[in-house]
This record gives sequence, C-alpha cells and structure tokens, in this order.
Amino acid sequence: MKLLRVGTAGAERPALLDADGTLRDLSALVDDIDGALLADEAALARVRAAADSGELPALDAGLRIGPPLGRIGKIVCIGLNYHDHARETGAEPPAEPVVFLKAPDTVVGPDDTVLVPRGSVKTDWEVELAVVIGRTARHLESAEEGLAHVAGYAVAHDVSEREFQIERGGTWDKGKNCETFNPLGPWLVTADEVPDPQRLALRLWVNGELKQDGTTAEQIFPVGEVVRYVSRFMTLYPGDVINTGTPAGVAMGRPEPKPYLRAGDVVELEVEGLGRQRQVLKDA
Amino acid sequence: MKLLRVGTAGAERPALLDADGTLRDLSALVDDIDGALLADEAALARVRAAADSGELPALDAGLRIGPPLGRIGKIVCIGLNYHDHARETGAEPPAEPVVFLKAPDTVVGPDDTVLVPRGSVKTDWEVELAVVIGRTARHLESAEEGLAHVAGYAVAHDVSEREFQIERGGTWDKGKNCETFNPLGPWLVTADEVPDPQRLALRLWVNGELKQDGTTAEQIFPVGEVVRYVSRFMTLYPGDVINTGTPAGVAMGRPEPKPYLRAGDVVELEVEGLGRQRQVLKDA
Repeated sequence: MKLLRVGTAGAERPALLDADGTLRDLSALVDDIDGALLADEAALARVRAAADSGELPALDAGLRIGPPLGRIGKIVCIGLNYHDHARETGAEPPAEPVVFLKAPDTVVGPDDTVLVPRGSVKTDWEVELAVVIGRTARHLESAEEGLAHVAGYAVAHDVSEREFQIERGGTWDKGKNCETFNPLGPWLVTADEVPDPQRLALRLWVNGELKQDGTTAEQIFPVGEVVRYVSRFMTLYPGDVINTGTPAGVAMGRPEPKPYLRAGDVVELEVEGLGRQRQVLKDA
Repeated sequence: MKLLRVGTAGAERPALLDADGTLRDLSALVDDIDGALLADEAALARVRAAADSGELPALDAGLRIGPPLGRIGKIVCIGLNYHDHARETGAEPPAEPVVFLKAPDTVVGPDDTVLVPRGSVKTDWEVELAVVIGRTARHLESAEEGLAHVAGYAVAHDVSEREFQIERGGTWDKGKNCETFNPLGPWLVTADEVPDPQRLALRLWVNGELKQDGTTAEQIFPVGEVVRYVSRFMTLYPGDVINTGTPAGVAMGRPEPKPYLRAGDVVELEVEGLGRQRQVLKDA
C-alpha cells in the first residue's frame, strides 16, 4: 500500500493512493499514519481490506501532501553509507555505520518549502531511502531480523549545511537540524511492495539538472544490517525513521566553486517506486 | 512552581509540589506538563492561582515520579561545557558550543532503573542542568533573549557509553541514546524560582561516594548564550530540552582502571534547588 497524509500542515488526514492512482480517505478507519498503526497488524489488515473493496471515499487530488508519518519518535541517520559518496568526500568507507540524529521537527511534506538557514553558504542536498520501523527492535542478531522490523519505505531529503556540520566544532547534528531540513514522502510504501530494498534507483535534480543518479546496490551497509546495527546501540520503536545515507553527487563533492543551494533553486528527487519530491528553496 | 508528573510510566498525571511539600493533583486543570502548557501563559497563571488557593487535591506521596515533561520534541545536548570537565578529558575548551542530540525516548523518571547496555564496559555518569524551552526560539540575538525563552529547569542525568560514543566511529550520538539514558526530574522548576542559573551546585554520588561536585559558574557557555547559539542552527520549540553539559568528575576522567558503572551500582545526583535523583543500574 501507498499510505500518505494530506491537508494543512499539522492537521493532515490519513489517506492512501490506490492501484488506480486515486487518493482515498482513511480518516474513518484510522486516526493517523503513525507508529501505533504500523505496529497494529489488525488495523493494517482493515485498511488493506477497505482499499481492496474500492469503497473508500475519494479525496481531492489537489490537496497538499504532508509527511506520510505522524508522531515520529526519532530519526536516525547513517552517514557515508554509499561507496561512491564516501569516495567523493575523500573519506575511507567506514568500518561500521556512522550514526547521527535529526529531530522529528525538521520533517516537512515532500513539496513544502525548504529554508536556506540564515548565514548559510553551504546548504547541500542528499536524496535518501528512508526506512520506517514497524516493530520494536532491541539487540537484533541478524540482517534478516532487521528487515523483518521494517514497516515500509519512503523518500527522504536529508538537507545538510556543510559549514555547520563540519566546520563549527562538535558533531554533524549542528548542520542537520535546521528548520525544514527533512522533507519526507510523498508516500509510505509498505514493505511488501518493496521486494528488494537494495535494488532501488535514487535520483536528484537541481533546477532540472541531474545531480545524483545512484542505486541502493551501492550501500555499504544494506537496510537489514543498518537496522540490526542501530538496534544494538538504541532501541528502535514503531514510527522511528532511519535515513540510510546518500549516493554520490552532492554539492560538497564537486570542484570549487561548489554549487550549494540558494533561494530560488528547485530540487526534485525520487526513489524508484517510492514517488517524487519537489522543493523550492527560500531564505529563512 | 515545582511541576511534576506522577504515576505509572506512560500514564503519568500532572501535579505540583506546593510550598509545604505536599503533592497536589493538577489533572483537573491541565492535560499534561508539556510544551503546550509551558507556552500558554494563561494556563500557567491558572495553575499558579490554584496552587496559591491551597485547594488542589492532595496526592499520595508514595506515587512513582515520572519525567516532569511529556511530549518532549527534542533534546539538544552541549558537550564539554565546563572548564573543569574539558580539562579532565584533555580537551581544549571549545571555541563554540559542541552540540549533539538525544532522542526523547531515552527519557525516564528520576528514580527509574538505568540499563547498562549489552556489551557495555564504559557506561558513565554525567549530572547536568537541563533547560526547558517555553517559547519558540529562532535566530536569537542575545543571551538575555535566550534566557527569556526558558520556561524552567530540571536535573538531567546524561548517561553516556564512552566506547560507543568515541571509539565506534561517527558522532557522539551512538553512545548517548541507549534505552533509559536520560533520567529527568523530579521537578520542572519554573524559571521565576531560579534567579541565577549560573550559581547552582551540581553533585553526583556513586554508591554513596561523591564523584562530581561542581557549579554552573564553571560553564563555558552560560544558559542564555547556549539557547541563543542553538537557536541559530535549529529552531527550539516549547517542550524542547537542552542538557547544558556536565562538570568534572566523570569516570572517563579518572586514572585506570576507570570506575565505569555496572549492574547493582547506585547513582544519586542533584542540582541545587531542583531536587535529587536516585537510580539503580541493571543489565539490559
């Protein structure tokens, strides 16, 4: 299923995109698309049956699309997780996953405005495969177990300010948590519709020019291994998100003058089967 | 006021500790102690008037005390923010604040069990002054403005696994986000009762032995400056928490063999005027 949330920011209603591409209202069936729903197999089965019945009310296709997940607990991010991206940044491929955090309040809808922070001269793009957790994960033993804890997938834009991230002391978090820095969606695609998360193309364009053109086959630590690894350092709960890293092609990896983002730029990005985002940059 | 939340974990009710030390029920007045309440001056005024009236129902003093804040949005932490702690770790005092994040799901009550993570041999203690945000803070210009956005203060225990934090690659977040790693409380003391946050004693004992004996006067970046600084990199919302760093005396700063925490250890900690915590360590 393709689950999503539509309407005014902060007051989105749950919906699904059916096989015909029609937007259907789920608000009579579920409160929200959130960790509680993803952990509730009976509720998900009811949603699936209602979708198959074709009787869910249709919604206006012109509604704003919000992030496809409410009440996100935490966003765990994996750094330098693509062979090609590690090479372009001049970093050695990490021996074990690099982990950092984004605050859930950075999440906006897939087509919402992204703000260039005040004083920023190094705002950069990163298309990523986001993993949404469906079952509490503690001390998992194998990558297979890791995959079994995944409820679904989505497109994430891990917007990053490189000066704040790297040149201002401390951890990467400083450049990863500016307002609007995590567009998510349009859809949460349930895991049954993504048979192999390691064969997904990822692409990102700036002002119509293709900048990132990667595949999750280049991930150093694949999805199941990432979930297993993270579960040994922190407990993952239903509704937590893992941004699994970005392929090559970011602004930081280009020759000088690096083409960092400015107000007026348009970023479009997609992950195969998970939909497409489009953001216009504005000054904060 | 001393606001707190009492009862079963996940189902705490709002309460206050009155001037006589009696626990009073606030559940008829407010839904919870959270960012929405802290941002609502009229609701806070009603709570204050009810407290002054002496007519709030008393609660059983034996109830479990939970964290004094619900629906925490994010926890921003400041690293190496005490001159004496920077010295003991061998680090230069940072030129600007070191920032990292803890996930809100690490928060437990002040006297709840703290879990030593599986495989951990370097679980360490850190008594800290936690700041709770009361008004949305973006791009603040001065430390005075920073202080004006603080709703109150609490004791935080920023439990840390040093191997995960420092020796496993990537950012500090890996050693800061294990389950139960952020005891908070017992109280959220409103800012009007903390006239000078830079004159508070902080102490921590392990098995009755005093390990940390510091003062917020040693903070490299004082509270107002920390809020101002962070607000330039990320937007702070009501109900966000900032752990402002720890003074000298952590296990990592001791000679070998460093006395890291093990199951059975008892940690007690306090910040002047903000109450006292006591945790028993157990294996995860």
